[in-house]
Amino acid sequence: MQVTVAVDCMGGDHGVRVTVPAAVNVMRHDPALSVILVGQREAIEQELTRLGAVPDARLSIAHASEIVSMDEPPASALRSKKDSSMRIAANLVEEGLAAACVSAGNTGALMAISRFVLKMLAGIDRPAIAAVLPALKGHTYVLDLGANVDCSPEHLVQFGIMCSELVSSVEGKARPTVGLLNVGAEDIKGNELVKRAAELMRASDLNFHGYVEGDDIYKGATDVVVCDGFVGNVALKTSEGLAQMLATYLREEFNRSWFSRLAGFVSLPVINAFKRRVDHRRYNGATLLGLRGIVVKSHGSADIFAFEHAIGRAVAEARGGVLTHIAERMAAMHKSAA
Amino acid sequence: MQVTVAVDCMGGDHGVRVTVPAAVNVMRHDPALSVILVGQREAIEQELTRLGAVPDARLSIAHASEIVSMDEPPASALRSKKDSSMRIAANLVEEGLAAACVSAGNTGALMAISRFVLKMLAGIDRPAIAAVLPALKGHTYVLDLGANVDCSPEHLVQFGIMCSELVSSVEGKARPTVGLLNVGAEDIKGNELVKRAAELMRASDLNFHGYVEGDDIYKGATDVVVCDGFVGNVALKTSEGLAQMLATYLREEFNRSWFSRLAGFVSLPVINAFKRRVDHRRYNGATLLGLRGIVVKSHGSADIFAFEHAIGRAVAEARGGVLTHIAERMAAMHKSAA
Repeated sequence: MQVTVAVDCMGGDHGVRVTVPAAVNVMRHDPALSVILVGQREAIEQELTRLGAVPDARLSIAHASEIVSMDEPPASALRSKKDSSMRIAANLVEEGLAAACVSAGNTGALMAISRFVLKMLAGIDRPAIAAVLPALKGHTYVLDLGANVDCSPEHLVQFGIMCSELVSSVEGKARPTVGLLNVGAEDIKGNELVKRAAELMRASDLNFHGYVEGDDIYKGATDVVVCDGFVGNVALKTSEGLAQMLATYLREEFNRSWFSRLAGFVSLPVINAFKRRVDHRRYNGATLLGLRGIVVKSHGSADIFAFEHAIGRAVAEARGGVLTHIAERMAAMHKSAA
Repeated sequence: MQVTVAVDCMGGDHGVRVTVPAAVNVMRHDPALSVILVGQREAIEQELTRLGAVPDARLSIAHASEIVSMDEPPASALRSKKDSSMRIAANLVEEGLAAACVSAGNTGALMAISRFVLKMLAGIDRPAIAAVLPALKGHTYVLDLGANVDCSPEHLVQFGIMCSELVSSVEGKARPTVGLLNVGAEDIKGNELVKRAAELMRASDLNFHGYVEGDDIYKGATDVVVCDGFVGNVALKTSEGLAQMLATYLREEFNRSWFSRLAGFVSLPVINAFKRRVDHRRYNGATLLGLRGIVVKSHGSADIFAFEHAIGRAVAEARGGVLTHIAERMAAMHKSAA
């Protein structure tokens, strides 16, 4: 299926040096994909020249004179940078010239701009950030990962519905299972927020699995894990910290002596296979759910390989028709409630 | 320093087969330690016989006819099992016959019984569960890990004060640094709870470091990380899940082929050194803070090695005089506020 994606080339820690090569690589492997490179024309052209690529029918440049910096307050990015690459990328989606946009820029600004430009889907109050995490069995979609630090039970239900549709659109699963993150599996456990959200989920047409705990994310107990943005963000960052610590320890142990270095050398293929398997870059690309357009947020520090995956996610969501699925589901719920 | 610890021998998944050998082992290495083994006399005696140990001046048995089961509701354990090993262990602390007690039993029941028997320290509203987690730099104390799923800002401040005193008592640090877990380091980030708690912490005499994020736990950015019990429990369980997944993956990669098995064989000393370093059993033993007595909760699935560490923690806290430190700090604060 033909699809066009707008790439904010100026966002992230590395800008065009990462975003442009990633876009070119993904395009080369996907003949039905068109990309609009958004940002400072000269910088993008220079990077394309370096790569031996030229703009053509599938690869165009949309000039944007401004850049949203990584630490810029969302309100200022929204109000005063109307010609930023992030804003123009969102505009392209709003105008229907691109089916999705991808940015490695400042999350808060991307959220504010996307919300302003694209607006929310009917029946959804707030956007949520959903990401895929690896699990023993397959992988798990988790949301919200930080867009909403104070949620109502109704918001959590909406998150469940949106992500359910996301999973069925992208993965082709008919009725993805949804778990609600809690501090225990028993009904009496939890705070008021999750207790009320569980009641609502049970009454909804979600394939609600009940409460799950933190470890269930990596067990892959359910397709989707729903939580508020504060809890989700802590879970994600804690995981990052633990993974980094374990990687450091493993490296230190393999560097401790000549014997351990030798063992490390012999084990290199195994260690590399392990690393490939848990490579967080393969999971790069979080989805801003709830908007009238597909917006994917890449990690700011993403390298080319990681950014390719973020673009790939945007393409998969566009082809899966996730927006239509969510809109239809919300309309059906509204009808049955009326 | 002479110290006596009461050990609930019936709690946990393995009962006397783990608790009794662990107690005997710890005693053998600590001539100034006395232990009261609490539980069904016959079962304890049988286990002692199996170990070739006999009760003496330092090793006594306190009979308890009942056992709190692992899935028993706290209220029922509290009301109807007045002769449970858990209850008798807490009674021994209350009566001053033991300086601390240790149990691998049901957390909710241990919390309810301890609170009922020992009461709260003056100025503390709620008990919190604090545990030590490994970090790149040293280790980090984190609380609350699940005792309180709905906290007020004042509770978080109390948690910070208590754990600060715990760290200075046990580790000998004069003014441990305290971080407040949030979704970003900037002042504008976070929900109402943490924003208000941060204000109170800044105004207190805590060595308040400001906001920390999930990854800072494993970086060891601060000595203490404070959060509400819902968030803390999710962070802890998510960490457990991730560690298990990574361990499984590593094992699978080393078992994939004859070559990887050979590499695994060569690397065994390195892998074992790594395992020792991240061995969660060395961190077993969470502290129930805020009570008028030292209560340490072991993981229910603890083995002998892990349970020894839980007993060791109780001993260290008793010797460090943590209760006196917390009480003095609360009294000083009350005075300066009056």
